[in-house]
Amino acid sequence: MIISLKETADKLMAANSLILTAHVNPDGDAIGSCLGLKFMLEKLGKKVRVLIDDDLPKFLSVLPGIDTIEKPENESYEADYLVILDASLDRVGSVIEKCKAPRLNIDHHRTNDKKADFLYLDAKRAATCEIIYELGKEMGVEFDINSATSIYTGLATDSGYFRYSNTTPHTMRAAAELMETGIRPEKISEAIETKDFDVVQGMAKALQTIELHADGRVAGLFLDHELTESLDTTEGFIDQVRVIDGVDVAILLKAVEPEACRVSMRSKKTDVAKIAESLGGGGHIRAAGCTIEKPFSQAKTDILKVIEESLAE
Amino acid sequence: MIISLKETADKLMAANSLILTAHVNPDGDAIGSCLGLKFMLEKLGKKVRVLIDDDLPKFLSVLPGIDTIEKPENESYEADYLVILDASLDRVGSVIEKCKAPRLNIDHHRTNDKKADFLYLDAKRAATCEIIYELGKEMGVEFDINSATSIYTGLATDSGYFRYSNTTPHTMRAAAELMETGIRPEKISEAIETKDFDVVQGMAKALQTIELHADGRVAGLFLDHELTESLDTTEGFIDQVRVIDGVDVAILLKAVEPEACRVSMRSKKTDVAKIAESLGGGGHIRAAGCTIEKPFSQAKTDILKVIEESLAE
Ligand SMILES: [Mn+2]
Ligand SMILES: [Mn+2]
Repeated sequence: MIISLKETADKLMAANSLILTAHVNPDGDAIGSCLGLKFMLEKLGKKVRVLIDDDLPKFLSVLPGIDTIEKPENESYEADYLVILDASLDRVGSVIEKCKAPRLNIDHHRTNDKKADFLYLDAKRAATCEIIYELGKEMGVEFDINSATSIYTGLATDSGYFRYSNTTPHTMRAAAELMETGIRPEKISEAIETKDFDVVQGMAKALQTIELHADGRVAGLFLDHELTESLDTTEGFIDQVRVIDGVDVAILLKAVEPEACRVSMRSKKTDVAKIAESLGGGGHIRAAGCTIEKPFSQAKTDILKVIEESLAE
Repeated sequence: MIISLKETADKLMAANSLILTAHVNPDGDAIGSCLGLKFMLEKLGKKVRVLIDDDLPKFLSVLPGIDTIEKPENESYEADYLVILDASLDRVGSVIEKCKAPRLNIDHHRTNDKKADFLYLDAKRAATCEIIYELGKEMGVEFDINSATSIYTGLATDSGYFRYSNTTPHTMRAAAELMETGIRPEKISEAIETKDFDVVQGMAKALQTIELHADGRVAGLFLDHELTESLDTTEGFIDQVRVIDGVDVAILLKAVEPEACRVSMRSKKTDVAKIAESLGGGGHIRAAGCTIEKPFSQAKTDILKVIEESLAE
């Protein structure tokens, strides 16, 4: 059942105990919205627990209250509502079985599965945290440094520090109001940008493989099986290639098996979803991926050929 | 003579012809404030020229009106005011000699030399563009996509996309209002982040030299003379090191001559200005630099020794 912002606020204010959760593989918006809402509800005298069925990323350890987040144990949890934030019901892991309370879902993903008992969805918002900010206003709770830091972190991370196309004047004004509590944006960004030495070193190795193709309209990182095996993560690597002047399609190819390569693509003009689909993958026009069941060299030749054939005119 | 925002607006509105300029080695704020003010003054029917005594960085070519910016020729320029933006008088190159009009200086640098005939200085503002925004309101000019894009770009670049400690709620609200004109933040950030292939490849080479010292509290890139010679720029390289988990002091050492190395340092806790001063250099507590007149290996040993001795407890 779709409900309004006011109805969502009314339900939260009528409740006594709440369990908050968000998607597995949690990001700044998932955790920020759980903690932001928790701080506000506690100000209203509610009993609140946050359950996340996953490990928390280290970069969020700067958030106040992060230590109060629990992993679901082998038991069942009672509450007036299970509040599912920044996700559909099927993305919160075991929490959905362990807490049978009515599901109150608050989300900004256009793709929400609409299976909750009560759903407040606003796809115009850059982050679920932007909705949490609006809920705070609706419930009449004053933001303090704890709730504001949490909510601001979700705004900043989901909008790529206010750079992505989802950023609106409303996003900026919400951030402004939250900053009035004394948030130090440079401290939050410093924490969020922190990387392990291994990751930076791995990126340095991966960047060695950089190649330009198609007169500079295609750029890629091509990681053979040995190099791929040596890396903990390749997150963000493609962004280093995407920014090269004149590049339309950026590729990250990883030989995840001796005979299988995972390909990620980003583009400025070309429809890379179409390219990915032609190879059994999928995605969006500007960001897509596929798996090519071939050894490194062959997969690399194949993907470059397909891309060069479909470059936008 | 120090004047108020209103007096600044009054002078601009009383003038018929204006020459605008900003500092050499211009950045997003210098060019953004020139173009933003130009668009607004033209709406008021003024005759406006922008003179910059330097080449313009390629990443700003996205700005509307960038092609109207002139380099000063070998002549003299007449106007009711020479408006100097984002700089003291001594940083605008030959423009200061070629235009003898009364100097109206608008700046946000605490270090302004206060030598202008009329100075409006507000060091609380993240960017001169934030003052240009206020001037627009004061003069009653409506922002359009051209003036707003220019002013927004200065806000975004000088505040590190709203991440640095100079970012205030006022900065965010100014950005919000400018965005109402239909600015596409993702297009501006894409343009600003664009890098030449050579620069990315150079960074990849430089990152190969990454080293951790002092139990991970010091990290550095150490570029010998050959490597340094092969690079067009090292701008931003130190940021890749600065973000490593646990690192207090980040170093970039470049052997700019066979017997001379340039050292840049960034820190989270340690006073690197003191370290730089002990080696004949200088800077701020968190960002400083010096030149060591020694060959690469010796300079590297020296700087590491001095840093390890002065690490903050
Ligand atoms: Mn989100
Ligand atoms: Mn500036």
